[in-house]
Formats: sequence, structure tokens, C-alpha cells
Amino acid sequence: MRFASSQEAADAILAGNVRAAARLMRMLDDRIDGATDVLRLLYPHTGRAMVLGITGNPGSGKSTLTARLIGLYRKQGKRVGVLAIDPSSPFSGGAILGDRIRMMEFANDPQVFIRSLATRGALGGLSRSTNDIVHVLDAMGHDVVIIETVGVGQDEIDIVRTADTTVVVLVPGLGDDIQAIKAGILEIADIFVVNKSDLDGADRAVGDLRGLQTLMSEMPDWLPPIVRTVAARNEGVDALAQAIAEHTQFLQTSPASQARAQNRAAFAIGGLVRESVWRSVDTWLRRTDAGRELVAEVTARRVDPYLAAQTALAQTLPNNPQLLP
Amino acid sequence: MRFASSQEAADAILAGNVRAAARLMRMLDDRIDGATDVLRLLYPHTGRAMVLGITGNPGSGKSTLTARLIGLYRKQGKRVGVLAIDPSSPFSGGAILGDRIRMMEFANDPQVFIRSLATRGALGGLSRSTNDIVHVLDAMGHDVVIIETVGVGQDEIDIVRTADTTVVVLVPGLGDDIQAIKAGILEIADIFVVNKSDLDGADRAVGDLRGLQTLMSEMPDWLPPIVRTVAARNEGVDALAQAIAEHTQFLQTSPASQARAQNRAAFAIGGLVRESVWRSVDTWLRRTDAGRELVAEVTARRVDPYLAAQTALAQTLPNNPQLLP
Repeated sequence: MRFASSQEAADAILAGNVRAAARLMRMLDDRIDGATDVLRLLYPHTGRAMVLGITGNPGSGKSTLTARLIGLYRKQGKRVGVLAIDPSSPFSGGAILGDRIRMMEFANDPQVFIRSLATRGALGGLSRSTNDIVHVLDAMGHDVVIIETVGVGQDEIDIVRTADTTVVVLVPGLGDDIQAIKAGILEIADIFVVNKSDLDGADRAVGDLRGLQTLMSEMPDWLPPIVRTVAARNEGVDALAQAIAEHTQFLQTSPASQARAQNRAAFAIGGLVRESVWRSVDTWLRRTDAGRELVAEVTARRVDPYLAAQTALAQTLPNNPQLLP
Repeated sequence: MRFASSQEAADAILAGNVRAAARLMRMLDDRIDGATDVLRLLYPHTGRAMVLGITGNPGSGKSTLTARLIGLYRKQGKRVGVLAIDPSSPFSGGAILGDRIRMMEFANDPQVFIRSLATRGALGGLSRSTNDIVHVLDAMGHDVVIIETVGVGQDEIDIVRTADTTVVVLVPGLGDDIQAIKAGILEIADIFVVNKSDLDGADRAVGDLRGLQTLMSEMPDWLPPIVRTVAARNEGVDALAQAIAEHTQFLQTSPASQARAQNRAAFAIGGLVRESVWRSVDTWLRRTDAGRELVAEVTARRVDPYLAAQTALAQTLPNNPQLLP
């Protein structure tokens, strides 16, 4: 599919045309000029989908849980878009994620659109790509957009900031190390799931979470509920969907929700600037004689990187008044 | 301790003064003006330390392994600096990492300098902070600088790019999910450690790793060795140190090492620009009337974020000709 114009592309996507959306996403992947023009036309039509972030450590069963949620929303007649963030390797082309197999049951459902995004080689573009794809899925008319990420690093935290509601999936029997990570995710979780809660230690995991919640310096407007599930047996998924619905309701009525939306917008704008500047500077450093010379001087420790950064910025920006896309 | 001048501070740190180094690190944390001036004076004196990155999933025992390596290097009479990246929470002040206790045995050793760095709230500044602290530890005269991070997300990968040699620690008995992550870390590992190799499944873990290595499209100059350890019993640590020494030797003789150093320098320079631009833009968006108005327009979907990013960049940079520090 070729687009005659950005407007034609946007119209097709707004009408829910899957091929047009897939084509735009490939253009975004390949950074083809004009992709941003289409996104700009779509943006006024976004904000209708409920954007759900699901994150958790490897082995927490979050992919199975995601598949269960997709099934539940499909029974409610909702259209579901899924963005699966893959920690994949350039060697394998992202093909080895056995986990994604659990979503294959929806491969032939025209009301479910699943898109994978590899984290590797993103050169800091991961949160931009996430935002872009969520905008497309939203503009296509999906009622629910699910972003699934592995892990709870800063990267994943940045990604889930894109979501309205973030579900953090944990499992019983976690060590000290995980306790630490739990603390890091307290901030981002709107809902906790203790999955595999038929295992020993489920009560303790719930208790640990409640204990961590009491460490918070002030009582939040929304205290994240802790939902027990056994995703493999489809247990607790209704309760999770109920908790998600309650959080959506909370967002619609809370005075803090406007601040939250603005915070998210500021983060997205800052991310766009950061990534486009980085890309421009990186290109200048690696692909121009002057840039390569500067890098060699820093490597030889004749120029320090702080001065070099000033130089690179001064050299790059005047030549790129239109940094974006 | 107060510094009368940047030169005085740099001289004290170059002489190995621990209090001066700690003071500079606090200045860097608090983004106090002048800290970068000191770093610039230190930079010509860096590049002497062997910088070792150690990463692995929670529960892999990498902190114990790090402690064992510190002990080994101390026996060789080397000064060791450690930068421990904590996925800590602002709620806890980073105090709950029980793992770090394993390094406490070196708390009174004046030849070991341990610094923690919290990942939370870094606003993209984590790789800059890592670089800065490594420069300080290097300039102080540490023979070995160890950067320890948890996890293998993009963030950790960025951090270990600072290292000369990166050790990835795995344990036997990993599920599908971990297999995927392994693929992502193939690129960054110079040495693999299968820790807890007295557990069932150690042979399989080693076999899996070798299998993944065969997926690489071309044979690298350096094929990462796979070292078995039982850190808790101090087994295999000599072999690991030997593998590290061999990689150091390889770097010194390989024609690719200059390209690697330049790649790292370009990455560091780009990171400095990216983070300083982001900080400036973020401040403009959140702390000025015009910035807040723009964010509100984007939130209301009357302005799209791509145009807003252009505006924010145009508004920010002319007002901040000196973006750094």
C-alpha cells in the first residue's frame, strides 16, 4: 500500500484500515519522511482508547495474563490493540520470544491488532516509538490499547508512563533483590497483580506489598489494589478487569487526573526533543569529518567530553532548524 | 570540605583524597555549578583504570561475585572503586538493598571506594552520572573500577557501554523469558558467568549460551568465554579474573579497540547533549507560563506533540547557549 497523501493515510487509519496502519508503522520503523505528518493528522483523534500498561519481571506470566485480558475484552465486544515490547536481539530478528505465542490465538481476530517493537538498537527512540504506535492504535478506534513490557528498568518505567493505568505483575517467592525492584515500581503501579497465586508464598508476597505501601510518605488518592490471579487457569482475571475499570473511573473523576495527563504530555514532548537532538548529534559525530575528529580528540583525552558536547550541540542545531521527525 | 577553586578540588582528587572525591560526587548529585569544571580538569588524567561492568538479573548472585572480585583485586594490591547502581525507591532512600551488605566487609578498607547511585528520578541522567563517577574513580587512581547494575534493560546496556569489559552473570534453570533476554545481552557480554553452577541445569545453561553464540551472524574477534562460578563458596573467581585479564590484553592489542573507544566516546558525548537538552526543555515546559500553556494545549489535543517539540526546542535553546552542565 502506498499513500497518495498524508491526509489519505490518516483517513484510512481513522477508518480502522489495518493495512494502512501497518504501513504507517513500517514507515515509522524506517524513519521515512512523512510518517510524522500522518501522526500529526491522527493526534487530534487520539485520547479515546483506554491505554493499559502491563509490566513485570521475566517469568511472572504477564504475557499469559495479557492474553487472558484480551480474551475478556473481546467478549465485551471491545477492539483491542497490543504493543508488545520485545527485548530482542538483532541476531535473531526478535523471533525467539516464545512468550508471544500465547497471543497467537488472536492472530486471526480482525478486532485484535498486535504489534511488536524491538528494544534493541533503538538509540533512545523507544519511548518515542511507543508513543507513536499507541497514537496509531488509539486513532484506529481500538477501545483498549495494551502496552506489555518485560522488566522494570527505567526504560520500562518510561514506557508505562504512556499508559493511563499500569499493572505490575509479580509472583510469589521473590528474593531480596526483587524486594528492591518492587520499591522502584511502587511509584508506577496503579494495580498490583500477584500471579501464580496458587504457589506457596502468595500470602507473603501480598503482605510484602502491603508493607511496602505503608512506607509511602503520604497516602495517595489511589491506593493500588493487589489482585491475585492464576493466569494459566484464567482465575482472577475478572477481578483484575474490575480493578482496571475502577481505576479508569477514578481517573475520570479525580482532580489529579488533569495534572497526570499534563505530566505525561510534558514527558512525551521532552522525549521527542531529546531523541531528535540525540539522533542529529550522533549523526554529526559519526558521519562528518569534523565530528569524527572531535570524537578522536576526546578518545585521546585532548578534549574533554563536556566541552565536546557543547561543540557538538553548537555544530548540529544551526544546521538542523527542523530537527524532527 | 569546601573547594577554594576547581583546580584545588581536582588536585586533591588526583592525589586520591577520598573526602574531596565524595564532596565532588555530592556536588554532581545536587547539580551544583562548578562540578563540571572539576570534571573537566580531571578528564585528561582518566583512562588508566580498568573499567569492569557486571550485570545480571536479580538473584543471580552478582553482588556476591562482585565482593569476591574486590577481595581478589585487593590481594593483588590494587585499589578498587565500585559504582553500584541501585534500582531504589525515593520512598526508602535506597536503603533496602540487602545485597549491598555483601560489600560491607570493605567499608573500612581505605583502598576500596564504594559509591551507590540510585536510578530513580534520574530524568535520563543515569548514563551521564555513571560516566561522571567513573571518571572521578579513575582519576583518583583506582586500578580497577567496577560498575555493578541490576538487570539487562536498555538502561543497563547503556551503563555498561561505559565499561572496558562487561561480565554478564546468569544462573542455571532459566525459563523461556530469560532466554529472550539472554539474546539481548549477547551483544554486550565480553564474558559470561554461570554462577551457582553447583545447581542442576548448569550444563544446560552453558550449552544454551553456546547455542546462542552460534546464532551470531559473523564470528567476532573475541568470543566471550563462559566461566562457571559458585560465588558463595568463592569458586571460579580466579578463573573469572583470568578471563577479565585476557580480555584486557585483547583490548590492548586488537585493532578494533580504537574503534570501540571512539564508539564509546561518541556515545558519551551524545548522551551529555541529549540529557542537557532534555533537562532544559523539561524545565521550560514545567516552569514557565508559555511552557505550561503549550503542555495544556497538547493535553487538550489542540496542538500535537510533534509541533510542540519543535516549539519547545526553539524556545529553549536560544535562551540557553550554555546548556551544560
